[in-house]
Amino acid sequence: MNALKDLSREELIKMKDELEAAFEAAKAKELKLDMSRGKPSVAQYDLGADLLDTITSASSFTAENGLDCRNYGVLDGIPEAKKLMADIMGTDPSHVLVAGNSSLNLMYDSVSRSFTHGVLGNTPWYKLDKIKFLCPVPGYDRHFAITEHFGIEMINIPLNEDGPDMDLVEKYVNSDETVKGIWCVPKYSNPCGYTYSKETVERFAALKPAAKDFRIYWDNAYAVHDLYDEGDELADIISLCEKAGNPDMVYEFSSTSKISLAGSGIAALATSEANLADIKKSLTIQTIGYDKINQLRHVKCYKNIEGIKAHMKKHAAFLRPKFEAVLKTFEANLDGLGIGSWTTPKGGYFISFTTMDGCAKEIVAKCKEAGVTLTGAGATFPYKKDPKDNNIRIAPSFPSPEDMAKAADLFVLCVKLVSVNHLLSL
Amino acid sequence: MNALKDLSREELIKMKDELEAAFEAAKAKELKLDMSRGKPSVAQYDLGADLLDTITSASSFTAENGLDCRNYGVLDGIPEAKKLMADIMGTDPSHVLVAGNSSLNLMYDSVSRSFTHGVLGNTPWYKLDKIKFLCPVPGYDRHFAITEHFGIEMINIPLNEDGPDMDLVEKYVNSDETVKGIWCVPKYSNPCGYTYSKETVERFAALKPAAKDFRIYWDNAYAVHDLYDEGDELADIISLCEKAGNPDMVYEFSSTSKISLAGSGIAALATSEANLADIKKSLTIQTIGYDKINQLRHVKCYKNIEGIKAHMKKHAAFLRPKFEAVLKTFEANLDGLGIGSWTTPKGGYFISFTTMDGCAKEIVAKCKEAGVTLTGAGATFPYKKDPKDNNIRIAPSFPSPEDMAKAADLFVLCVKLVSVNHLLSL
Repeated sequence: MNALKDLSREELIKMKDELEAAFEAAKAKELKLDMSRGKPSVAQYDLGADLLDTITSASSFTAENGLDCRNYGVLDGIPEAKKLMADIMGTDPSHVLVAGNSSLNLMYDSVSRSFTHGVLGNTPWYKLDKIKFLCPVPGYDRHFAITEHFGIEMINIPLNEDGPDMDLVEKYVNSDETVKGIWCVPKYSNPCGYTYSKETVERFAALKPAAKDFRIYWDNAYAVHDLYDEGDELADIISLCEKAGNPDMVYEFSSTSKISLAGSGIAALATSEANLADIKKSLTIQTIGYDKINQLRHVKCYKNIEGIKAHMKKHAAFLRPKFEAVLKTFEANLDGLGIGSWTTPKGGYFISFTTMDGCAKEIVAKCKEAGVTLTGAGATFPYKKDPKDNNIRIAPSFPSPEDMAKAADLFVLCVKLVSVNHLLSL
Repeated sequence: MNALKDLSREELIKMKDELEAAFEAAKAKELKLDMSRGKPSVAQYDLGADLLDTITSASSFTAENGLDCRNYGVLDGIPEAKKLMADIMGTDPSHVLVAGNSSLNLMYDSVSRSFTHGVLGNTPWYKLDKIKFLCPVPGYDRHFAITEHFGIEMINIPLNEDGPDMDLVEKYVNSDETVKGIWCVPKYSNPCGYTYSKETVERFAALKPAAKDFRIYWDNAYAVHDLYDEGDELADIISLCEKAGNPDMVYEFSSTSKISLAGSGIAALATSEANLADIKKSLTIQTIGYDKINQLRHVKCYKNIEGIKAHMKKHAAFLRPKFEAVLKTFEANLDGLGIGSWTTPKGGYFISFTTMDGCAKEIVAKCKEAGVTLTGAGATFPYKKDPKDNNIRIAPSFPSPEDMAKAADLFVLCVKLVSVNHLLSL
C-alpha cells in the first residue's frame, strides 16, 4: 500500500468518508472489549488451577529447614521458594527474599522505605530537597505512579530495542547525586517487548553513580514469559554488578502473578547480602512474615524451574495466537501506510504501537467510543504525558482470540480514521 | 502462706539455699522451652488445616460480585470476606478493607502512609517537628517497635482492668496536637488480657483531639478469642465514634492469624468511608490487590461468624488447660507471698505477671539460664524500658500442656529465688 501522506486531498476525503461509515457500522455492533491491562485469560487460569490442589489438610507443611509453614516465623521466605524464585530470575537463592503476592508492593515498599529510612545507612530521602528517577519510555505506568506519589522527579530516557539510551543513563547517574533510581523492565519490556542486550546490562553494571544510594529497580516481571521456544536471553545483572564492584546497586523483582494466579502468586526481591540485611531491619518491624503456605504451594506445584518452563509453554500456546492475530491484522491493514508502526515481541504481555505524532489520544478515544477499552494514551509515560502523543499499549492477553480479532479490526480502523483526519488538518 | 517480706533474714537465707539447690536441679533437666511469643500450637493448626481443603481446582472461583478471584482486580477485598471480617470486629462491611496475611503490616503501612502522605489531607508527619503516640502499658512490643522505627515519641499511659487511664488520655489527646495516635488492644489486651469497659470505649469515642489527624489504632486482635463460653464483651468503637461526631477517629484492625493459620490468614482494616477513600488513594499505587483466593478460602471454610465461633471453641479447648495449668501453679506456689501478682484473662493469648519492683529482668534471665525462654523483660513497654522492671509476659499457647507445667514450675521457682535475693539485698 502507499503511504497516506502521498495521497491527494480528494483521495483522503474519499477515504475519510469510507472510514467514517465503517466506524459507524462498527459502533453499531456495540462491542464491549477490554484490552487495557495485561491480565491473563480465564483459559490460562484454568490450566493453572492445579496449584490449588497441591496443598490439602493431609499435606506435609514442613519446609526444608524444618519449619512448620502454618505457624509464624521466617521473614524472608522458605528455602525451597527462594530457590525457585532465584532460578526464575537467574540468580542465587542467597540473594533472594520471597514475599507476599505482589512484586509491585515490594517496589512500592522499597521506595517508601528509602523515603522514610534511607538506603543502606544513607540519608532518608524525605530529608533531601530533590530526588530524581530515570524512566525509560515508553514504560510501565504503575512504576511511574509510585515515584510520582512520592514527589520524585521523573526524567524520560528513550528506550531502544537493546535497552535504554545508555549514554544518557550514564550521563545522569554518574554526574547527578539527586538521581537515586531507574525503573527497568529488562526482559520483554512493558509495553515494547524489548529485551536489554548483554552490552546494555554490562553498561548498567559498570555505572559509577554519583549517589551512593542509587539503585537500579530491575523489574524482571517477564523472566520466563516466552511466546516461542526460542526466547530472548537476559544477562544476570546481579553477578555483573558484583564483578563490576557494584554489588549493592540493584534491586531485582519478580513474581509468579503471570505464572500461577494473578493476585495469589508469590513475589520476590533479589539483591546483595548487605541490601537484604538493610531491608530486613525494616521488614521485621513491618510484618511477622509472609504467607509461607502459599510459598510451599508453589514449590509443590511446579517443583523446579523445568516445571515452571513447561507450564509457561502452555501459557504461550494461549497467548501466541492472540499476539499473532493482532500483528497479522496490523500487517494486513497498516503496512506501508506510514501511519503507524509496532513492535513484534517474542514474549511478555504487550505490543507497543506508535502512531503519527499527535494521534494516540484520539485513537484511544475512538476505540472507546466503539466499545474497545485500551490502556489510556499517555499511560506509558511519567505524569501520563506522552510528549509526542504517539504511543499506545496493546494488551492482547485477556480477550478470547475471536474478541481479539474484532478488537484489532476496530483498532486499525480507528488508526486509519484518526490519521486521515490528522493529515487533512495539516 | 506468709508474705516473704515478713520473714526474718535467717529464714530468707535458709529459703534462698533451698531455692538455689532446686534451681540447680531444674537446670540439670536441660529444658528447652519457648514461651516468648503468642504462637498457636501444632494441635490448633491440625484442627485448622481443613481451611486448605476448601478450595481446589474444581472449586468455583467467582466472588459474590461476579469477580474471578484468580485474576487481578478489587483493591479492598471481596464482599463476602468483608462481611466475615466485619462480623468478627462487630462492625458493618461498608467500613471494611480486607488485605493480605498480616494486620501488623496494615498498621505499619498506616503509620508509614501517615508519615509520607499525611492523614485525610493533613500535613504528612515527616514535615512536622514532633509526633507523639500514647502507649497504654504494659502493651504489645510490635506496636511500640513501629512507632519507634518512625522516630515517634511514645508516652506511657497506665492500663487498668477497664482500659487505659482515660483522664490521662483525654488530657494528652485533647490538648496536645503533636499527639497523633494511641495504640490499643481493646479486648484481651496483650499482655494483661484486660477488656476495655463500655465506659472506656465511650470516653474514647468522645475525645476532642487537638490534632485533626489523631487516630485511635484499635488492634482488635482477639475479638473472638474467648477461653470460656462466657467471654468479655467489647463495645463497637466505630459506631460510638460516629454517634459522638468523630466518625474518622479510629482505625480498627483484625486478622485471622490466630483463627485459621498464622501467616496464612487474612487481615482487615475497618474505618470510616472518608478514611477508606483516603487510604485507597495510596493503596492503589502500592499494590494491584491482595490474595483473593485466600479470602475466598476463608469464607468457604468458616461460612459466617457462627462458623468462626464454633471453630474458636475448639481452639479454646486446647488453650484453656494451658492457661489454667499456669494459673494453678501460680496460685499454689505464690499466693500470699507478696512477691508477684498476675492477671486471670478470660481470653486472648497472654497472662501478665507483675514481680516485685526491679526483679523482672533477673527472673527472665534465670528462666533462660535453665532453658525456658520468656518474652524479654521490658518488651511490653516503649523503648523496651519497663520503668519499674516488674512486668513479664507469659505466653502459654505454644508449648504442650506437659511442657507448660514444667515451664510454670521453673518460672515460680525463679520468681521466688530472685525475690528472696532481692529482699536480702534491701
